[in-house]
Amino acid sequence: MNTLGHYLRFTSFGESHGPAVGGIIDGMPAGLPIDLGAIQAMLHRRRPGSGNGNSTRREDDTIEILSGIYEGHTTGTPIAFMIANRDARSEDYDLMRNAIRPGHADATYLLKYGIRDHRGGGRASARATAATVAAGAMAMQFIATAGITVNAAVESIGGMRGEQEIGEALARARAEGDTLGGVVRCTIHGVPAGLGEPIFGKLQAWLALAMMSLNAVKGFEYGEGFAAAGKKGSESLDHPVALDSALHTEQNHAGGLLGGISTGEDITMRIAFKPIATMMRPIPTLRTDGTPCTLEPRGRHDVCAAPRAVPVVEALAALVIADALLASRLSRV
Amino acid sequence: MNTLGHYLRFTSFGESHGPAVGGIIDGMPAGLPIDLGAIQAMLHRRRPGSGNGNSTRREDDTIEILSGIYEGHTTGTPIAFMIANRDARSEDYDLMRNAIRPGHADATYLLKYGIRDHRGGGRASARATAATVAAGAMAMQFIATAGITVNAAVESIGGMRGEQEIGEALARARAEGDTLGGVVRCTIHGVPAGLGEPIFGKLQAWLALAMMSLNAVKGFEYGEGFAAAGKKGSESLDHPVALDSALHTEQNHAGGLLGGISTGEDITMRIAFKPIATMMRPIPTLRTDGTPCTLEPRGRHDVCAAPRAVPVVEALAALVIADALLASRLSRV
Amino acid sequence: MNTLGHYLRFTSFGESHGPAVGGIIDGMPAGLPIDLGAIQAMLHRRRPGSGNGNSTRREDDTIEILSGIYEGHTTGTPIAFMIANRDARSEDYDLMRNAIRPGHADATYLLKYGIRDHRGGGRASARATAATVAAGAMAMQFIATAGITVNAAVESIGGMRGEQEIGEALARARAEGDTLGGVVRCTIHGVPAGLGEPIFGKLQAWLALAMMSLNAVKGFEYGEGFAAAGKKGSESLDHPVALDSALHTEQNHAGGLLGGISTGEDITMRIAFKPIATMMRPIPTLRTDGTPCTLEPRGRHDVCAAPRAVPVVEALAALVIADALLASRLSRV
Amino acid sequence: MNTLGHYLRFTSFGESHGPAVGGIIDGMPAGLPIDLGAIQAMLHRRRPGSGNGNSTRREDDTIEILSGIYEGHTTGTPIAFMIANRDARSEDYDLMRNAIRPGHADATYLLKYGIRDHRGGGRASARATAATVAAGAMAMQFIATAGITVNAAVESIGGMRGEQEIGEALARARAEGDTLGGVVRCTIHGVPAGLGEPIFGKLQAWLALAMMSLNAVKGFEYGEGFAAAGKKGSESLDHPVALDSALHTEQNHAGGLLGGISTGEDITMRIAFKPIATMMRPIPTLRTDGTPCTLEPRGRHDVCAAPRAVPVVEALAALVIADALLASRLSRV
Repeated sequence: MNTLGHYLRFTSFGESHGPAVGGIIDGMPAGLPIDLGAIQAMLHRRRPGSGNGNSTRREDDTIEILSGIYEGHTTGTPIAFMIANRDARSEDYDLMRNAIRPGHADATYLLKYGIRDHRGGGRASARATAATVAAGAMAMQFIATAGITVNAAVESIGGMRGEQEIGEALARARAEGDTLGGVVRCTIHGVPAGLGEPIFGKLQAWLALAMMSLNAVKGFEYGEGFAAAGKKGSESLDHPVALDSALHTEQNHAGGLLGGISTGEDITMRIAFKPIATMMRPIPTLRTDGTPCTLEPRGRHDVCAAPRAVPVVEALAALVIADALLASRLSRV
Repeated sequence: MNTLGHYLRFTSFGESHGPAVGGIIDGMPAGLPIDLGAIQAMLHRRRPGSGNGNSTRREDDTIEILSGIYEGHTTGTPIAFMIANRDARSEDYDLMRNAIRPGHADATYLLKYGIRDHRGGGRASARATAATVAAGAMAMQFIATAGITVNAAVESIGGMRGEQEIGEALARARAEGDTLGGVVRCTIHGVPAGLGEPIFGKLQAWLALAMMSLNAVKGFEYGEGFAAAGKKGSESLDHPVALDSALHTEQNHAGGLLGGISTGEDITMRIAFKPIATMMRPIPTLRTDGTPCTLEPRGRHDVCAAPRAVPVVEALAALVIADALLASRLSRV
Repeated sequence: MNTLGHYLRFTSFGESHGPAVGGIIDGMPAGLPIDLGAIQAMLHRRRPGSGNGNSTRREDDTIEILSGIYEGHTTGTPIAFMIANRDARSEDYDLMRNAIRPGHADATYLLKYGIRDHRGGGRASARATAATVAAGAMAMQFIATAGITVNAAVESIGGMRGEQEIGEALARARAEGDTLGGVVRCTIHGVPAGLGEPIFGKLQAWLALAMMSLNAVKGFEYGEGFAAAGKKGSESLDHPVALDSALHTEQNHAGGLLGGISTGEDITMRIAFKPIATMMRPIPTLRTDGTPCTLEPRGRHDVCAAPRAVPVVEALAALVIADALLASRLSRV
Repeated sequence: MNTLGHYLRFTSFGESHGPAVGGIIDGMPAGLPIDLGAIQAMLHRRRPGSGNGNSTRREDDTIEILSGIYEGHTTGTPIAFMIANRDARSEDYDLMRNAIRPGHADATYLLKYGIRDHRGGGRASARATAATVAAGAMAMQFIATAGITVNAAVESIGGMRGEQEIGEALARARAEGDTLGGVVRCTIHGVPAGLGEPIFGKLQAWLALAMMSLNAVKGFEYGEGFAAAGKKGSESLDHPVALDSALHTEQNHAGGLLGGISTGEDITMRIAFKPIATMMRPIPTLRTDGTPCTLEPRGRHDVCAAPRAVPVVEALAALVIADALLASRLSRV
């Protein structure tokens, strides 16, 4: 189940230490100019070292287009692309061939498939998000033609919100060989009213599906989110002020969505990331045969998943919005 | 997009004030004994008056099976069913033909489709969840054959957790013509390891999609959820204690899922509901032509969505788990 | 797998002797006026006795709309409908509970599902096509808004083509307790250029899938079909005469499709039906336990499937074209 | 719509003169040993010069696996692969930038997408079938684990059946700068009873969809096919002789399928190919601006599509059977 989307379909492939990660985008309308530089720039925002508290693996991700773009424009045929895995030091992972890392997918992949590529987490590695970012960068160029923009940012790390507090928390965690959770918020601006396919294709449902497919994500909310559960209706209502091609409201507790369909106001959401499971300290665990062992700290690892997840969140949001934008062309005779 | 699921596919239909709600379940394996009484009992838990703070609309929901069940067993062919809409007083809603209710889907359906069945919210009504409950009740009987059970409960209403505090909050809100948000938690017990289809079919992603398709839901989290975002890795890790046909851990911060695949531990999640938008007080709003008007309180309405949502959450969880259980049959040669 | 279509999705349900057949159409654009009389008229063309050589089962098929249509127009929500099974004499089939009919799906359903509703063929009965016709009648009303019409007709029965020869062949077969195969041809007129989604959604592929899902169909061809296999390229080519919003050609050997995409010329196809397997003569066969037995002629049966299949072929073609018409809205930025 | 299959999903990409063709296979069960040599051998059977009457383009197709296979076995993650396009002489096609070739997809792609990669037919080129063959070769290795084999062969070319007559017809056509149609037959042996998902996933429907997605195919039939349309029921019936885990019949007019589900007997089918549209003679046609012009013979082209289509037909059949084999795991509780 490596495909996201119904009308714009992104199928992803790739393991951390295989030859490449990449994917196929099927359903992208023809005639869209593709700016490869913008894709590359978005890939650079995702790579290690792009934010605070990140691993030092060098990922000079270069996208190679294999099909679907001709003379700089999409042709309506599937867009295949790949990003070669360079600097993948498999030897770092030899010790993990017969052990499972707590908090990682090692055990579950093994239990499900009876076999796994243990190197760097294989398919479960965050490395796979490079493909998502590349696909999302193209989706972003498509929705930009409709005036839609997506912006995500780190809201908090380890419960800290200010830049200085975050920096200190990261430094402290790194010094302790520990890791931290975080929250990324995302706003989608310029969405026309009418996007979202109720009942099982509500826009928040598609967004939740996309975000929950991202590594380390433990929660998704939009608009007031969990806070709304503690409120009264009278505190939570958005007062309509105008109804034209969109519904304009005084507030936006709703987060831009009513009944699963966009109102035209900004779509707002928050995504919660758990602390990264790999810590720079000895971790007691099990071998694949069930016997106990200890994992010694090795390799290169982030302290917090949130900073590098920012462009991935944007990419996923863009893919979902592009999908919904296409779907909305079909709603009326 | 009224279909949920990939291997077990539930397609839903129905408006609040049309002849019936119902659906088709396609992909249910043959040979499953179906207990209609259990379906009926689950429908009764969903109906108004089944919990505190609920509307007084009488819904004597009786399921009619139209196909797919023969001599008490599923035959492998599509199971169609319907639940007639009785006691649907359309006249209550005549005033709303030309007005939009704040916090409801009235405006967005109109903006999307250019037409809407305004009676009782039409397709956007919580009435549609009766069909979901019936389908989920059948899914529950299927997953029970694998020893899996699903249990949901109200955790809090308006921020209150104890039964007495909740009762008082509901009474206060009702007296004030106000409404309240709430949280439902859900636990899935007995899930074998190996359910979940990474990357875009992670089990938490399918669960989030299902839950976010439910009216008034603003947030979804599993395991530690948003709390994990404020934690250190050393506080959040689950220590493996045994690895056999499942991964057993000392704690279960993970909520039973690693890398999108079930570990075998309980799957735990929380779903946040916003306060019901319809309040028993005059609400300033807009007509469909954009001019202002005031909605006077009418009809029959719940104070909080959470109590009646409990069986719907269970139903959605059961549908997702049934889907994942079927998918897991395909993971190995 | 009881769903046809990707953008307009028709999910079918129902057994021959259950309470009803019917379905859900999901994805029908909002705002389409629905002419129930036209649906009813198409259902009447399908019922027994509507053509030569047909069974005498009385099927006064009346469609009941359960959702999705409000004040005579589609609303964009799923259209559910049912057609009650009246005049279904289950007792006729009691003898078949423990026997399999040669040339029918009795054995294969049993082998696949381990259980079957043996009455009248259950899900495998031609009765299920009533639902297809109703859905197709709605699709036909949708594509008519784009100027597209579908017409099918019997081309031959038992190898005979003229009306008189066909009549004689049918009479002879009936007298002999035998049955006949036949060919239905179908023309789709007014299709705009650009319908069809290569590579695996070529329009001929979608049409073939739809037609091959119909009972007794053994072959599908479009344009020159199998005849093209015996020809030279110089005999088979269509000479372009104009290229504007469509490709106009002197001939139409291609049958209106090139590379899986409509040219704008008429789409032509032929569908081959095998003789009906149930004959009015004693048939040696097997019981479900593998022992031999003889089926005595009983019940009410057609001599040839082709005449009653005509509206079903039209319905399936209309569903496919409606699906492709929606898809074509997504092909360009 | 470049994906084939529901449970085993093959998504294809690539243009004739782009960097590569290839695809992603999603849903292949884990633990399957993959024999790359066998894939390579099947690719070699498809390449030009592998049969009579074929073009002289050199295609040394070498498959590169990008993901999903680890230490020689499938891991359950998506299998991505590519086959580089070497020896693609774009300059041969410069003349066609502004002209459409009769009988080709040039005009329809242009009408649909408003843009096309004109070089060698772009996405519509038979070159894309290299990816299908590679994917099908892997599917063949999967179904072989269930004892299933697929064999296709040329049955006739230009109406000729014997090897010598075919050779003469090909030589004559080549000398005349003409081309020929042909028929490929295909037999699937060892299929267990119970494959096929009625109603809209009948096995013949899936097979037809797959075969009709192949370039130049104009017709599909299984079992007796179109011949059945001219027969009596008494001539066409298969007499059951045993019913155990399969239905054994004296004859096999049915072609191994009843009600869309496999009986266990051989599945037989025939696929009709039109003559190749590109002939080695001047062809009057139109420019993309609608003005007339003449195409002079250039490049490298086959005389008949059937010989090289043989491994492609096998590949498509294997993909469909693999999909149905997986689906059949879900039919019973």
